Amino acid sequence: MCGTEQAVVIRSSNASSVAEKKENGSVENHAFEEIINLDHGDPTMYESYWKKVGSKCTVTIPAYQSLSYFANAKNLCWFLEPKLEEEIKMLHNVVGNAIVQDHYIVVGTGSSQLIMAALYALCDSLNEPNPISVVSAAPYYSSYPEVTDFLRSRLFKWGGDARSFDEDGPYIEMVTSPNNPDGVIRVPVVKGAKGVLVHDFAYYWPQYTAITSPADHDIMLFTVSKCTGHAGSRIGWALVRDENVAKKMVKFIELNTIGVSKEAQLRAAKILEVISASCQRFKPRDLKNFFEYTHNLMAERWKKLRDSVKSNKLFYVPKFPLQYCHFTRDFTETYPAFAWLKCKEGIDCEKLLRGHKILTRSGRRFGSDQEYVRISMLARDEEFDLFLQRLSTIHGVSNRNSEL
Amino acid sequence: MCGTEQAVVIRSSNASSVAEKKENGSVENHAFEEIINLDHGDPTMYESYWKKVGSKCTVTIPAYQSLSYFANAKNLCWFLEPKLEEEIKMLHNVVGNAIVQDHYIVVGTGSSQLIMAALYALCDSLNEPNPISVVSAAPYYSSYPEVTDFLRSRLFKWGGDARSFDEDGPYIEMVTSPNNPDGVIRVPVVKGAKGVLVHDFAYYWPQYTAITSPADHDIMLFTVSKCTGHAGSRIGWALVRDENVAKKMVKFIELNTIGVSKEAQLRAAKILEVISASCQRFKPRDLKNFFEYTHNLMAERWKKLRDSVKSNKLFYVPKFPLQYCHFTRDFTETYPAFAWLKCKEGIDCEKLLRGHKILTRSGRRFGSDQEYVRISMLARDEEFDLFLQRLSTIHGVSNRNSEL
Repeated sequence: MCGTEQAVVIRSSNASSVAEKKENGSVENHAFEEIINLDHGDPTMYESYWKKVGSKCTVTIPAYQSLSYFANAKNLCWFLEPKLEEEIKMLHNVVGNAIVQDHYIVVGTGSSQLIMAALYALCDSLNEPNPISVVSAAPYYSSYPEVTDFLRSRLFKWGGDARSFDEDGPYIEMVTSPNNPDGVIRVPVVKGAKGVLVHDFAYYWPQYTAITSPADHDIMLFTVSKCTGHAGSRIGWALVRDENVAKKMVKFIELNTIGVSKEAQLRAAKILEVISASCQRFKPRDLKNFFEYTHNLMAERWKKLRDSVKSNKLFYVPKFPLQYCHFTRDFTETYPAFAWLKCKEGIDCEKLLRGHKILTRSGRRFGSDQEYVRISMLARDEEFDLFLQRLSTIHGVSNRNSEL
Repeated sequence: MCGTEQAVVIRSSNASSVAEKKENGSVENHAFEEIINLDHGDPTMYESYWKKVGSKCTVTIPAYQSLSYFANAKNLCWFLEPKLEEEIKMLHNVVGNAIVQDHYIVVGTGSSQLIMAALYALCDSLNEPNPISVVSAAPYYSSYPEVTDFLRSRLFKWGGDARSFDEDGPYIEMVTSPNNPDGVIRVPVVKGAKGVLVHDFAYYWPQYTAITSPADHDIMLFTVSKCTGHAGSRIGWALVRDENVAKKMVKFIELNTIGVSKEAQLRAAKILEVISASCQRFKPRDLKNFFEYTHNLMAERWKKLRDSVKSNKLFYVPKFPLQYCHFTRDFTETYPAFAWLKCKEGIDCEKLLRGHKILTRSGRRFGSDQEYVRISMLARDEEFDLFLQRLSTIHGVSNRNSEL
């Protein structure tokens, strides 16, 4: 499972013309096409907004700053920069997507680290003789099985599709809403008595979906990557109700990486500050409302995607209901960060698209079927347009598949 | 074991006067003393150098930079900033402490993450039925047992003191040189046929010890924290000979944190660049040779420490042999980042010092005895001087111990 990920580590922007010679020496036309890598959710789409913001959001760090391991020794999360804590609270209050009161904030090196920290925190204290099952309803985020199992921990193990989980005893259900890969709004599905929930809210931001109410759960995970586009910073945070769980998560991060980069935290704080400011009625004239701008971008891309497959009988793009968003004060569709594209029955969609040099992630990786693929909607404009252009030319399964 | 760490999460600079009332209501004199926390190796001593460097080393990052997960998709370590790679190579060449040729560079979120990455890389491919033992000669770095065991992996387990390890089969030996906690130059001690070595060279820099030759091992770990003092950045790197091991380490970091903060990498690159420049014959006049400056600081602190316990029959400070350093082209003692202080037989040294509000780490945490403590030599000047002043007043075991 792990091996498949490495094969696709090709920079999205790094599309290259590759000439592939066939055995008889002839060169196929398609061989000169660029590889379009939409396998990862690399959020380079956001660059256009941040270029417009200019120097208002530039961060300057002198050499003598932040030498210490500690950011705030008095805080339960002793490596959390106070400025970042403040801006996280501010942003949640501005957007209205989560309740921060009565929650501890734990910062992590992206939300991947926080997922592991939560699993450790929830399982270590239970002292169960067998590893605790971690489940999520299919299609589930493809990293959950990998992250749960790669160290072969005796604390937890991947338990598969939450819908078919019926064991007694404790379990952890990952609730991802909107869901990665399919954008669906999710609630827990397992009805066990001893379940603990981890809510992954990476995509619960106004550019992707209606903010219907402020979430208020025991463990809620967020990440800068999918909110602001700064995936390179590796900053995520958890809102955690229980003090002991929060302490254990901090302990995990202490043992795993002795805290979280101060530079990344300081920059994330600045970026969140500018986003919150951009949502205010009185703001610098040239600062556009971040969520309005990016919501429009997403809406436009989804329209283009639907248009490009409208007359195509091979692909099916899911639809989403209108919902009232308390942030925009308007009704909106969901515009997920990924398109969960379905092919006609019996077709291996990932293979078909790979034959056209479009790299996507197969439905099988998400506990689903080969007819599905997950496609990033967050690439740069040029790449996204090139993808649509190529997609619109695919009307059947050509011989290309067999060449790859 | 984990629990003891959290109790000491008190910022070194955050010394506070605490008045402790005894049961009869009287207040002890010592109750007004500040807590001096020398438990961690928090390298705030280096601030004085970086303040002098001023704006030459300030890093400025615009908001649109480094949004992508990727830094260099063509590199085996796809999240490693090319500029950091370049400066790591440059610094090793300038200092002469490690061979970078024929090694892959893997960047990590501090060297803690790289230790776990190395264990994963070395064990995962072996497919052994039982966890592989990880050992290190006592006194060993107190984090090794914790980091190895906290996730209860079926891949590896802590095997204790390398000197008493005599099992057949594969094992991993951590070789820390100079050693944490005692500053001794180390070579492997286990003579098994199936051993793999991980060299932890966090302290193999000219301010701490003579650079006797460029190290050239299969896996060598370094960290910015103890080299430049920027512990808050969480940047470490591994030099790895075998391509498959390097790939697996990258895989670990991909699953654990999807790479390493770009901001921290860019700042580390700038800092290493300035250090390399400071070592050149022709350099800005106001830029002092970093290693000369910090070596002098360390030498001065060690002299002061020795002086303060000279006439004291309670404490013993270890001595180190003179060695020729190829970097400074002179003979030098070792000036470790930690003092491995020994108390008179039968005394619990950590408890004794805690009675005087000096927090240190007990020898027991390092697989050694209660007579020993590890004391950070890297605190700020004021704190270090206060520590020496207080240490010089301790001549016996007072009743204070029983009060705590």
